[in-house]
Amino acid sequence: MNPDIVKERKAATFDVEKLTHILDGGPEKTKRRREIESLVLSDPDFKGEDPNFLSRSERYDQAVRRSAQMILKMREYGIADPDEIYYYKRMVLGNNPEPAGLHYSMFLPTLYRQCAPEQAKKWIPLAESVQILGTYAQTELGHGTHLRGLETTATYDPSTQQFVLNSPTVSSIKWWPGGLGKTSNHAIVLAQLYTLGNCHGLHAFIVPLRDLDTHQPLPGVVIGDIGPKFGFSEVDNGYLKLDNVRIPRENMLMKYSKVEPDGSYVKPPSDKLTYGTMVFIRSMIVGESARALSKACTIAIRYSTVRHQSEIRPGEPEPQILDYQTQQHKLFPLLATAYAFTFVGQYMRQMYNRIIGDIQQGDFSEMPELHALSAGLKAFTTWTSNSGIEVCRMSCGGHGYSQSSGFPDIYVNFTPTCTYEGENTVMMLQTARYLVKSYRQVKAGQQLRGIVSYLNEAEHRRVQPQSVAARPTVVDINDLSSLVEVYKLRAAILVEMAAKSIQQELQRRKSQEDAWNNSSIDLVRASDAHCHYVVVKLFAEKLTEVGVTAIHSVLSTLALLYALHGISNNSGDFLQAGLLTVPQLHLISVRIKELLSQLRPNAVALTDAFDYHDRKLNSVLGRYDGNVYENMFEWARKSPLNATEVHESFHKYLKPLRSKL
Amino acid sequence: MNPDIVKERKAATFDVEKLTHILDGGPEKTKRRREIESLVLSDPDFKGEDPNFLSRSERYDQAVRRSAQMILKMREYGIADPDEIYYYKRMVLGNNPEPAGLHYSMFLPTLYRQCAPEQAKKWIPLAESVQILGTYAQTELGHGTHLRGLETTATYDPSTQQFVLNSPTVSSIKWWPGGLGKTSNHAIVLAQLYTLGNCHGLHAFIVPLRDLDTHQPLPGVVIGDIGPKFGFSEVDNGYLKLDNVRIPRENMLMKYSKVEPDGSYVKPPSDKLTYGTMVFIRSMIVGESARALSKACTIAIRYSTVRHQSEIRPGEPEPQILDYQTQQHKLFPLLATAYAFTFVGQYMRQMYNRIIGDIQQGDFSEMPELHALSAGLKAFTTWTSNSGIEVCRMSCGGHGYSQSSGFPDIYVNFTPTCTYEGENTVMMLQTARYLVKSYRQVKAGQQLRGIVSYLNEAEHRRVQPQSVAARPTVVDINDLSSLVEVYKLRAAILVEMAAKSIQQELQRRKSQEDAWNNSSIDLVRASDAHCHYVVVKLFAEKLTEVGVTAIHSVLSTLALLYALHGISNNSGDFLQAGLLTVPQLHLISVRIKELLSQLRPNAVALTDAFDYHDRKLNSVLGRYDGNVYENMFEWARKSPLNATEVHESFHKYLKPLRSKL
Repeated sequence: MNPDIVKERKAATFDVEKLTHILDGGPEKTKRRREIESLVLSDPDFKGEDPNFLSRSERYDQAVRRSAQMILKMREYGIADPDEIYYYKRMVLGNNPEPAGLHYSMFLPTLYRQCAPEQAKKWIPLAESVQILGTYAQTELGHGTHLRGLETTATYDPSTQQFVLNSPTVSSIKWWPGGLGKTSNHAIVLAQLYTLGNCHGLHAFIVPLRDLDTHQPLPGVVIGDIGPKFGFSEVDNGYLKLDNVRIPRENMLMKYSKVEPDGSYVKPPSDKLTYGTMVFIRSMIVGESARALSKACTIAIRYSTVRHQSEIRPGEPEPQILDYQTQQHKLFPLLATAYAFTFVGQYMRQMYNRIIGDIQQGDFSEMPELHALSAGLKAFTTWTSNSGIEVCRMSCGGHGYSQSSGFPDIYVNFTPTCTYEGENTVMMLQTARYLVKSYRQVKAGQQLRGIVSYLNEAEHRRVQPQSVAARPTVVDINDLSSLVEVYKLRAAILVEMAAKSIQQELQRRKSQEDAWNNSSIDLVRASDAHCHYVVVKLFAEKLTEVGVTAIHSVLSTLALLYALHGISNNSGDFLQAGLLTVPQLHLISVRIKELLSQLRPNAVALTDAFDYHDRKLNSVLGRYDGNVYENMFEWARKSPLNATEVHESFHKYLKPLRSKL
Repeated sequence: MNPDIVKERKAATFDVEKLTHILDGGPEKTKRRREIESLVLSDPDFKGEDPNFLSRSERYDQAVRRSAQMILKMREYGIADPDEIYYYKRMVLGNNPEPAGLHYSMFLPTLYRQCAPEQAKKWIPLAESVQILGTYAQTELGHGTHLRGLETTATYDPSTQQFVLNSPTVSSIKWWPGGLGKTSNHAIVLAQLYTLGNCHGLHAFIVPLRDLDTHQPLPGVVIGDIGPKFGFSEVDNGYLKLDNVRIPRENMLMKYSKVEPDGSYVKPPSDKLTYGTMVFIRSMIVGESARALSKACTIAIRYSTVRHQSEIRPGEPEPQILDYQTQQHKLFPLLATAYAFTFVGQYMRQMYNRIIGDIQQGDFSEMPELHALSAGLKAFTTWTSNSGIEVCRMSCGGHGYSQSSGFPDIYVNFTPTCTYEGENTVMMLQTARYLVKSYRQVKAGQQLRGIVSYLNEAEHRRVQPQSVAARPTVVDINDLSSLVEVYKLRAAILVEMAAKSIQQELQRRKSQEDAWNNSSIDLVRASDAHCHYVVVKLFAEKLTEVGVTAIHSVLSTLALLYALHGISNNSGDFLQAGLLTVPQLHLISVRIKELLSQLRPNAVALTDAFDYHDRKLNSVLGRYDGNVYENMFEWARKSPLNATEVHESFHKYLKPLRSKL
């Protein structure tokens, strides 16, 4: 164990194990997670070569092997609970995805939700037992966000009682689905349904893609891998071109809408029913943001305590780089953010489960709020973590750039969350639509409930942008609940400003749509402020649940840092709105520095509490024992370029070159 | 040609070719650049497989072949001028680096500058003719920024008249130098010089690494590749462990300091002499920031005109995504930044050449300013471009994540500029040191010259943070020179605040060093504001050189957008300092929206003016002809995973799995 990191752990003021319990959701959960993780640790089948040393095809091969092994082993161990599956898979996969991922996250869930009873009987056992392996093919080469724009067609032929599927254009080729290129033999394909000469919009169809025995593509199916990407190297994101592919009528998912044998179409009873999956996945992504950022913080902070560099005082030994104020200022606010997002992730999960329960009771009332909140928070947290990971990487100097640091994998495999399951700007605008609608309801005299209820208050207070001098200052910058109020007022003001911008555009005789588009910068800003408020609020609320004094104390420091750092980074908003004064902002800068010093002794302990096993972190820089350099050297020696002392290119190009010169 | 992009080009209000001349530095330069680029285009030797489809070893092999070919061909074509070499190499290499890069950028230049005459006679012809291939080994596994901390030793043995080189610890292993692992047979090694029992600090030694004929490592030399990285896959960044490696006394570079045969040490006449290279490279990196960002903007803006998505007005066709205000707000300020940095890059180049001329005349007076400016601007521009590239990538939705977009390569090969040649935060603090020193000189009654002369003025005006109400408002937000003034005052105020923070720390009995560290957040902020001011100022000055009215007009719009967007993003600073009022900030938001609309018709033309040939851009999304989707499909089909219809992993793992379930 590196003595620097031992010293750090001794300096901690709280019991790390107890904080881990809070993060896991209770001591039993921590225990069970560790039991499951230890199954992977002791399993020789999962000791393999670092994927970074493999070619893409080898990497895919390794990943398919692991997917297959995981299926068998989880069955053997009786791991079936979603949380436990998650624990197991994350330990096997580390920072990387798996080719069969969409079978579990999209194919099966869609079958569960959209199969009619007869269909469920046929398909679900096949899919659960992995006799068939499926993916979910929605996005097309030319179409993503706007579902109505999808071009793939499914035309019903009553004479054979079949659907005929086609990709009529290049832009209609299905593109991106994970596991589509080489792994899956079935896909749920989203296509425009045509029957009896009418188009009834997007519907889902089960399409067999490959022969179950030979795995050869079926007639009319042109299928393949879309090529190398920034990350997801082990996943065969694929393309699919359909050329008069015929499937039986029964392969349309018919729980809600139907096509009868004669081709007549039966409408679904409600449009809201397909809402659920997206909302679920977006809610889960909030937790993923927390995990990715907390991993990056763990690596950067641990390394910053064993890395010595430069000098603060001449003649003295080189200090730990975490003693530099600039390093603390890069990392501690991100650490605070990782905690904030962890708690927001827990909240979203609970909220989702509660509201889904309500929906099953027929109560849809909270669905719009969940929808708006999951959209905005998905965007807010992924953007923040995305840039935060890179800050962590660059805070480790050159070594952060090595694959051995773990950072490149964490980044490239996380960054798609900003785009998939709803592009972030589009998500922010969806939340803004809800906020503006709520604002207008208040204006029309309605009383709002739920998370937007602050817009009622704002109306009562007649909050308006006004100069600093005009607003009395009652904010206590050391009091978290006072800061929650300030964030709330900022959000209220920015929602109002966005709504007014739309109003002004309308007064200039712009159409509703153009007015919306011409206000969209303000709308995104309002959503951002709303989400920021929600995060500060939920962090503050979480503190009330924490009983252990020492932990309450350190989490309070983190929460205060999170709130004040957010104000400092957006100081223009708070000044413009007259919510804070110039002297207060100066005090906040000073206070932030104090909080950085205050957190310094607990920094490593706060990363230890996330309890990432070295195997899961997969980072030489972030090793628990701090023994970075000898292990980095050992890792490098395994580089495939070192397989021979002299690379063949010397004989082919460099030696001949000399004779030609 | 895609009709959307044809339409865009027709809408432009200026002559693209004339703007290209300005960017190149004159019509002759454009002409010559294109002549050189066409040599590559017509050369069948450089038509090869997309490196993204190759394994790392294949990629390295391809890159070595290209390096060898370039050497022969440039000799054949008589390309020897540094600019022309740059044109040629960039066209061959696209967005990627080459393994032999450091031979030209560091090994040869160091020989030129630090060889004594006898040494120059021996080594320079060998290196110029590539009979020997060298690299520059400074950074160690445990030591980067702080040169005095380097541990490698070179101990003089008078009995044999040799230096004995050693890597005494794991952390002293040389680490990171490009081309060190497999390619080079020599290195300039930086080591602590010991002679007659005394250490004389860091000196440079020419160390043979590999046998010239067999390329086998020489005795005592442990050498290899440091393993896969985020990018630079084709470069063998290497490690080097020296175990009693003996080199002749004459292999120490002795232009300035010397070791005599008897071991006595002769000091260099001045410390400043080794300053030059770093400053040169940092100045050049500013231009690299401009190029990387302008490439990213070219790709994103072109693609945003051929990509149609969603709807603004219901029932109408899907609009070009560049018509969304949020998309313009992401991309146009970055486009403006790319132009700004291009002009700053031109300025740095001219300034460097001028000051180097002065230095050769014995006038060192402007050296500190050049040093401070190149450090800060290197950090300022690389950070901005680094995050800007990712904004561009994510603005292209999922397709930006594909390697075919070019973005991943641009990002991973650019991002090290934030770390190498001086870590960015360290660079900002170096600039801050100069600023605080200058501020103190003013306080002591001195009159400053050069770029920091604004600190004189500030002192006269007694600029201090004060409330909004107290400062009369004379700023015209539509007048660039007025905005330059505002940026200047902001910089002056933040320098003063940082200096005062140090003062306050000293008053609390902190040491100079601790006071500095405890103020470093403020110091970085001051440097950032200083650099921002310099960029706005230089952009404004560049406009005065532009005679063509239509081009002057569009560049003025860009400059205004750059300045106002910077204010809007840092509004807290301007409000806190009382430089702008709340109503002015509101007007600025409105004005920014107008500028976005105003730039919209010229967006594609402004990217065309950078004149990146498709070959150089290497992006399916950024193709000049806009034919994105068919080419993306064609590219994907070449993916190595598509070499067979059925990947072997099916037979190995998936088929057997089914029987086990």
